[in-house]
Amino acid sequence: MSDTTRFLLNETDLPRQWYNILADSPVPLPPVLHPVTKEPVTPDFLSVLFPMELILQEVSTDRYIDIPEEVREIYKLYRPTPLVRARRLEKMLGTPAHIYYKNESVSPVGSHKANTAIPQAFYNKVAGTKAITTETGAGQWGAALSMACNFFDIALEVYMVKVSYEQKPYRRIFMETYGAQVYASPTDRTQFGRALLEQDPSNRGSLGIAISEAVEAAATSGGSKKYSLGSVLNHVLLHQTVIGEEALKQMDMAGEYPDVVIGCVGGGSNFGGIALPFLRENLRNGQRTRLLAVEPTAAPSLTKGIYTYDYGDTARMAPIVKMHTLGHTFLPPGIHAGGLRYHGMAPLISALYEAGYLEARAVPQVATFEAARLFTQAEGFLPAPESAHAIRAAIDEALDAKAKGEKRVILFNLSGHGHFDMMAYQEYLAGRLEDYAYPAEAVAQAMQSLPQVETEVTAAD
Amino acid sequence: MSDTTRFLLNETDLPRQWYNILADSPVPLPPVLHPVTKEPVTPDFLSVLFPMELILQEVSTDRYIDIPEEVREIYKLYRPTPLVRARRLEKMLGTPAHIYYKNESVSPVGSHKANTAIPQAFYNKVAGTKAITTETGAGQWGAALSMACNFFDIALEVYMVKVSYEQKPYRRIFMETYGAQVYASPTDRTQFGRALLEQDPSNRGSLGIAISEAVEAAATSGGSKKYSLGSVLNHVLLHQTVIGEEALKQMDMAGEYPDVVIGCVGGGSNFGGIALPFLRENLRNGQRTRLLAVEPTAAPSLTKGIYTYDYGDTARMAPIVKMHTLGHTFLPPGIHAGGLRYHGMAPLISALYEAGYLEARAVPQVATFEAARLFTQAEGFLPAPESAHAIRAAIDEALDAKAKGEKRVILFNLSGHGHFDMMAYQEYLAGRLEDYAYPAEAVAQAMQSLPQVETEVTAAD
Repeated sequence: MSDTTRFLLNETDLPRQWYNILADSPVPLPPVLHPVTKEPVTPDFLSVLFPMELILQEVSTDRYIDIPEEVREIYKLYRPTPLVRARRLEKMLGTPAHIYYKNESVSPVGSHKANTAIPQAFYNKVAGTKAITTETGAGQWGAALSMACNFFDIALEVYMVKVSYEQKPYRRIFMETYGAQVYASPTDRTQFGRALLEQDPSNRGSLGIAISEAVEAAATSGGSKKYSLGSVLNHVLLHQTVIGEEALKQMDMAGEYPDVVIGCVGGGSNFGGIALPFLRENLRNGQRTRLLAVEPTAAPSLTKGIYTYDYGDTARMAPIVKMHTLGHTFLPPGIHAGGLRYHGMAPLISALYEAGYLEARAVPQVATFEAARLFTQAEGFLPAPESAHAIRAAIDEALDAKAKGEKRVILFNLSGHGHFDMMAYQEYLAGRLEDYAYPAEAVAQAMQSLPQVETEVTAAD
Repeated sequence: MSDTTRFLLNETDLPRQWYNILADSPVPLPPVLHPVTKEPVTPDFLSVLFPMELILQEVSTDRYIDIPEEVREIYKLYRPTPLVRARRLEKMLGTPAHIYYKNESVSPVGSHKANTAIPQAFYNKVAGTKAITTETGAGQWGAALSMACNFFDIALEVYMVKVSYEQKPYRRIFMETYGAQVYASPTDRTQFGRALLEQDPSNRGSLGIAISEAVEAAATSGGSKKYSLGSVLNHVLLHQTVIGEEALKQMDMAGEYPDVVIGCVGGGSNFGGIALPFLRENLRNGQRTRLLAVEPTAAPSLTKGIYTYDYGDTARMAPIVKMHTLGHTFLPPGIHAGGLRYHGMAPLISALYEAGYLEARAVPQVATFEAARLFTQAEGFLPAPESAHAIRAAIDEALDAKAKGEKRVILFNLSGHGHFDMMAYQEYLAGRLEDYAYPAEAVAQAMQSLPQVETEVTAAD
């Protein structure tokens, strides 16, 4: 065991391939359905939204997929990211546990989202795409895609949830500095947006609505615009596996192996990114690492949602996928972790969780900010409210190990920094943060809007 | 020459000593004078404000001073910092120059200020200090000292320039998250602040005023509080030399040696930190690197100020030092680079500049933000407005090399990120930023307030 604090890889250790769990998963993924016909979708349908290379990655069962050199060159601006032993946090907790974190907040945009934004922009560039549409909630994803599109000279339209657009001007300006066009959603630029504004001009938007607008803008562009999604899909989780692949090498440098790997989950991409390479080691190499997804009690799609077919967006324009969901009409309470306010969950994560390969836990908002502040005071770095969910669980694991007097090696993903979330910290410091009980009634109501999928469709292959 | 992008040192390469230019400087420093008697100050006078170890460092002529292990342990949270070859920026400029930058923005607080905040808090801790006062303008220094005091369990009072306190709530909350008490200066907590508010209740403060308040709060505390300064003083520049020491090793890894080393200057600490180890190589090992300090045209203390004795603060409570100054009553125009809005300059930097060992250049605000945006779009990372001054000069050097068709190796210090300065970027993007002509009249008026130092005092040794 090393006495090092930060375990740094050289550029030559930057992974050359992404890892595709579909090659090893014992759980086949049910097919994706067309939102209108409810029949399995064809690549043709998806090609309205995505370049072919990403569609192929979406369905590939190759174990490893080469990372293009053009993508690796840009990854090198910030990757490999550090693995850090949180020695000061351990000491503060008085725990015998060893706590490691992978610091994805060091990317130029401050989060792991860059890991998929860069290849998505690249594959679009290769396919000749001139413009992309996307949505963003708190703005982490929008900022990442803004940077990536800037690198590849692609125009970008960002539909930003109106409440965030108004409350988080910093992230909007950040995106604009990279050259993106940012619109407060609902907008009058789409049919769906106009219809909503007609019903209620003061509609402040939601992630589901913003997705619908971005999808509509691309789907009705006559082929001139593609669409890009920052989480949920298989190819997004695929790109994020650089996190876990690096972490495996770095844990090796540290001379330890994690007993538990932790990530926060909204759509599932940063958790998938760090956990899936460790799941491979569980499945193929006899490791027994627990893989723990942490979600907010306000939007607990894994721990309270059901595993069923649902739409990915509010307007029912996105494909229907089988996933853990709270119902596509469910609007989560206004917690500050905007990136975790999503009704569904990546189909891959949902299927693996359902089959028992992953664990999940929901944590309340105030305890999450307590963990964030403790981490900041111990380690110096101020985490994003989303990432703070992983920290909460990591601390709880460390305290549990302390109570039981056992050594435990804990690894969590620090998916992003909180520099654009300071107003949330102010609310916390002022004692004005609320905890939200599980919104059972709202979920029950949303569950009634689930699509009627006639027959239980069986696995694709 | 390497094809690497980021040159990373291991923790074992973290410097064990700071470099003290006073051991090699051919230019002796004139003595520091008491603000009232105008006689050279005694350590007794300084000990009201500073712990003895820092006073000894202030006057030491030892070439190297050991970095305490407790400080190195905390440095390891973010040091060594990366040296980065800005290949994408070079390409965008079409320059034959090689551009390297030292990325100090990766510290938990987002700037180089942590490098001196940590040892200052440590030496205070060792001396038994229970509370520290300081001032902050834009908030970079305040955040760094907040983190450091938190690590060493010392209470911190931050006097934050009122206009920044109101316009930059994010940085204030950042400091509060570490546990600091932040006050909008002028406050009613000091005699000086109360007098100013009596004259003008709407006084929005300045860095000079905030320094006066912080100094008064410590000096009148009956020994219960010490004071800490984030720039200007010898011991601050000393601590910052970790930047240049690491950069020397990293340039070696890159197989190159810089023709020019560039840093922005307000008080002079980040520039000194990167440049002084290279000056040692010039003085002792026959290197001929140009060392270029870059200041805003709105506060051009090196290029337009005069080299004379002046007060460090507005209320004339701080010692009188010989430095480049625009007059201690000069209030720089409201540029967004708050950290560069200071009337004076580190005595060390001033003396070396006066003697021809350093170069200086003033750059206007709009061109500086143009450089910042270009850098962001090329390299991904969004710089602080202060650091953008160094980027402007680096780009100009690269373009000059291009015009002359010559290879030039350029190294600049990216002293901090701009995540808390997005409103400034918004002003720039909206075309609302102003350039400020050199405020000649205001400076001429301020020059009349220079202290009357009876005789030209000669060098201390």
